[in-house]
Amino acid sequence: MIETEPAQDKGRSPRPTDLRRVGIHPDAWYPVVASRSVQRNAVVAAAFAGERIAVYRGDKGEVHALEDRCAHRQVPLSMGVVEGETLRCCYHAWAYRGDGRISQIPYLSKGAARPPRGVRAYPTREAHGLVFVFPGDPAKAAGTPMPDLPEAGSPTHRTMRFSRTVRCHYSFMHENLLDMNHQFLHRGVLGRIHPELLGYESGARFVEARYLFTPGGGKKDRGAGLLSAEGLGNRGSSDVLTIRTEYPYQTLQLVPEGADRPAFSLWAAYVPADAAQRTCHVHGLLMIQKPRLSGALTLAWPLIRRFTERIFAEDRTAVEAEQRAWDEQGEDRNHEIFPVILDLRKVLRANGTPLRENVGGCGTTPSSCVPAATS
Amino acid sequence: MIETEPAQDKGRSPRPTDLRRVGIHPDAWYPVVASRSVQRNAVVAAAFAGERIAVYRGDKGEVHALEDRCAHRQVPLSMGVVEGETLRCCYHAWAYRGDGRISQIPYLSKGAARPPRGVRAYPTREAHGLVFVFPGDPAKAAGTPMPDLPEAGSPTHRTMRFSRTVRCHYSFMHENLLDMNHQFLHRGVLGRIHPELLGYESGARFVEARYLFTPGGGKKDRGAGLLSAEGLGNRGSSDVLTIRTEYPYQTLQLVPEGADRPAFSLWAAYVPADAAQRTCHVHGLLMIQKPRLSGALTLAWPLIRRFTERIFAEDRTAVEAEQRAWDEQGEDRNHEIFPVILDLRKVLRANGTPLRENVGGCGTTPSSCVPAATS
Amino acid sequence: MIETEPAQDKGRSPRPTDLRRVGIHPDAWYPVVASRSVQRNAVVAAAFAGERIAVYRGDKGEVHALEDRCAHRQVPLSMGVVEGETLRCCYHAWAYRGDGRISQIPYLSKGAARPPRGVRAYPTREAHGLVFVFPGDPAKAAGTPMPDLPEAGSPTHRTMRFSRTVRCHYSFMHENLLDMNHQFLHRGVLGRIHPELLGYESGARFVEARYLFTPGGGKKDRGAGLLSAEGLGNRGSSDVLTIRTEYPYQTLQLVPEGADRPAFSLWAAYVPADAAQRTCHVHGLLMIQKPRLSGALTLAWPLIRRFTERIFAEDRTAVEAEQRAWDEQGEDRNHEIFPVILDLRKVLRANGTPLRENVGGCGTTPSSCVPAATS
Repeated sequence: MIETEPAQDKGRSPRPTDLRRVGIHPDAWYPVVASRSVQRNAVVAAAFAGERIAVYRGDKGEVHALEDRCAHRQVPLSMGVVEGETLRCCYHAWAYRGDGRISQIPYLSKGAARPPRGVRAYPTREAHGLVFVFPGDPAKAAGTPMPDLPEAGSPTHRTMRFSRTVRCHYSFMHENLLDMNHQFLHRGVLGRIHPELLGYESGARFVEARYLFTPGGGKKDRGAGLLSAEGLGNRGSSDVLTIRTEYPYQTLQLVPEGADRPAFSLWAAYVPADAAQRTCHVHGLLMIQKPRLSGALTLAWPLIRRFTERIFAEDRTAVEAEQRAWDEQGEDRNHEIFPVILDLRKVLRANGTPLRENVGGCGTTPSSCVPAATS
Repeated sequence: MIETEPAQDKGRSPRPTDLRRVGIHPDAWYPVVASRSVQRNAVVAAAFAGERIAVYRGDKGEVHALEDRCAHRQVPLSMGVVEGETLRCCYHAWAYRGDGRISQIPYLSKGAARPPRGVRAYPTREAHGLVFVFPGDPAKAAGTPMPDLPEAGSPTHRTMRFSRTVRCHYSFMHENLLDMNHQFLHRGVLGRIHPELLGYESGARFVEARYLFTPGGGKKDRGAGLLSAEGLGNRGSSDVLTIRTEYPYQTLQLVPEGADRPAFSLWAAYVPADAAQRTCHVHGLLMIQKPRLSGALTLAWPLIRRFTERIFAEDRTAVEAEQRAWDEQGEDRNHEIFPVILDLRKVLRANGTPLRENVGGCGTTPSSCVPAATS
Repeated sequence: MIETEPAQDKGRSPRPTDLRRVGIHPDAWYPVVASRSVQRNAVVAAAFAGERIAVYRGDKGEVHALEDRCAHRQVPLSMGVVEGETLRCCYHAWAYRGDGRISQIPYLSKGAARPPRGVRAYPTREAHGLVFVFPGDPAKAAGTPMPDLPEAGSPTHRTMRFSRTVRCHYSFMHENLLDMNHQFLHRGVLGRIHPELLGYESGARFVEARYLFTPGGGKKDRGAGLLSAEGLGNRGSSDVLTIRTEYPYQTLQLVPEGADRPAFSLWAAYVPADAAQRTCHVHGLLMIQKPRLSGALTLAWPLIRRFTERIFAEDRTAVEAEQRAWDEQGEDRNHEIFPVILDLRKVLRANGTPLRENVGGCGTTPSSCVPAATS
């Protein structure tokens, strides 16, 4: 351990954009709800950065995502009713197709004013038990890859899914996971751990850091042990963790000492909910390699889930405290010193998009425009 | 039913004032509390468009309405005590007469600064079990008619009173009732109904629409049946509904097929509570004609009340969703096509008053001025 | 009692600064927590006018007060852990000394950016069971006297301590206590009382008023009687109350008729919590002279506590109503006529400090600057 040299606080005038005012880039596939939460012939409310989205599943099982505002009177379509492949507003019963076009207005007569064409529809895909939408330029949807997660569907792994809401800017989540020096926060769950940075590299769209985790004693959660070297019988040995932000997602892989494959890997997306992007929905997949006796994993499953929940709760406490500090201070006053995080900030800034100024707490939604749709 | 012609969204630049920024006109009689909620020698707090009003009833039974701010330190007079015909502030015991003038300051000595004259008093009337105030120019109060409701006091009818708070601009309430194409919202309570617009007319201060309601099957609430043709024995027949906004009130009359008088009629006032007028108190009277066997109505009364409460709860869900959409979008993005509602909007705009800009969430109150009072 | 002459409301243009926009002056000793709420090796969160303060007690029992923001990522240090005489942040385990300097960053390596020096430390003193901090210019701390309360530690008196949060500007608290004409508010607890102003004087930093309290009948709380002349056997006699604001504190002394010493005296500080200073923490000491049979006081103690709690609850209702009125009206519209209070307002204005404009609801904190610290 190192005693710091006291340093003068330098003038901070020519600062880059405040990272907490950088919006996440919409030209990517973002999970917005779990597949199983959208039953056949049902509709649910989702959101992306202040845009409200109605996600519904029609008769045939296909999922559609529409702007969650009836073009008529802006009532959420997620309060409506699915009929076949259409979604009908609960109020005056206007019906929409999956491409956002209005298919019926029951009482429309000759004397009526010309109705609007419809609402925005989002390109939608389903994978790994999640519904993804493409909130950016629809022309770029087809050419933008979905996250590549071979382990999520593999018979060699079992996948745990989690969705939670955290009241902070998505960047705090990336910084939390990538800076493993925060293990002090988890001392009650993980015991004392000495994380050592083995190395890191960064590029235009990514930062990746590798750490050696050496146990330093102290009581450890049983679920934690099951996920690390201890679970494989090497008590007291060290694990290697690789954490990578590859815009806009983040992954973590744990390779126990002596192993050649990850004991588990995590994939997470932090999806801003409100227009100010001060709240995000976390959608994660935790993929765990099945041991030879795969029944053991089934037995351990509840312990592993409890462990991840405890860790997540502690992280949430910290990142929400950071967001509250930002809210009160009105700007980012962090004094970051860790090179990995300094690189991460550059990546998140460079790949993000300007956040609209003067965004109120309740968010804004795009106008009821309809993208060019195939007839 | 008609398939809509897709229409291009036209440029929306030369728009009229946003209806949700139009304040209700204060030169009218508005109910602010139910008579029975102001007992003799008691005081209650009411409000009109951000103006707080203390309504009290003196020893003789007469009701008075004062600005709900002591002129001394702005503490609500509704926290005070009624003594005879005066209202005494709870804090330093200043006493006010029904005309707003200060009648006593117990500790006033020669050395004291000159006290203010008093607070604003509102012209007040009591009718139909409601306390009405005139929040506008007091000189116009005497010449402005109270709502004319002959049935409310008639032995041929029984009246149900209701008061509720709805978090929306009053205009959403008018639009809700006048556009009967929203029966889809009530499909669970009323069953399927086909409303057909028979005709409508409008003028400088009113819009009136007549609809034919034809039952389309489906389970119906028993209270609903009791209020319509079914209740009179004509199962499966149609009713005629006449809905009228006559600024600033709204009425609805239901005439069963074959009948020459309304089975019931509704009168409602939507009274803005806050300065931004995004919340309103609804005060309504439902007047139901007594059948020959008037005991039947007594028996049906709880069912009718339950029915109206279910309908009201559904309407509230819709109009509050509309207000939330407006709050988020910061403007009215409705694409209204129904001519009746387009006319209604003109009436509400033309008869309203500009809403003060930059009104905060907590509302504002007028200064402690005293209108010219009779000696 | 005197009937007021109705007076015209004068033009109010050349008004002095709105008192509710005057900040309390930071160059004084303010209590922020009770001593017993900061155990050895523990840390608690406190606040002064929007500045968050972490108060901790080290191994040796000494209390320290630091800016409640880790210099690294602004997470509250009050979420951290005390180790010896240092305070360690919960997140990345940065450690701080009592003077605010960083003593350790566990993972700091050669490649890291230069860390900040530390956080602000507040001069701190402990007295009368309270922890005081000096939030102003630290150079003035040593020369600024602590409140002088000989009775608080005297064997002739027993002291009751109370701490409460009141949602109002501190000035409302001063005005409440100094204007004893508000006894009408306490008529249910104290019975009818006729307060008579015997005299008052004021200076640059103080106002003092003396009142004669004559009982006017009515049921009185037993605790009230125990604190006044009745408690000493002189039923029906009068007490003299002396109330003094000596910036920034306030005191009250009650001398029963015929006595030469106060039966009780109160000392109170109203410490703004948020940056807008619309909420304050009240820290008070109530010092009661022990009677010859000191066991009587022990028996009466719960009654006296209950009495003070009832009075305080009533006062809180009034002052919080005043603050809400100010919030809604956006300015001070009081029409004060009482000379004592007019003088008090001058004292509070003259000794205060301008409140930052445009202060948001959530407050702001000073930057992470470090005052000149001893090596």
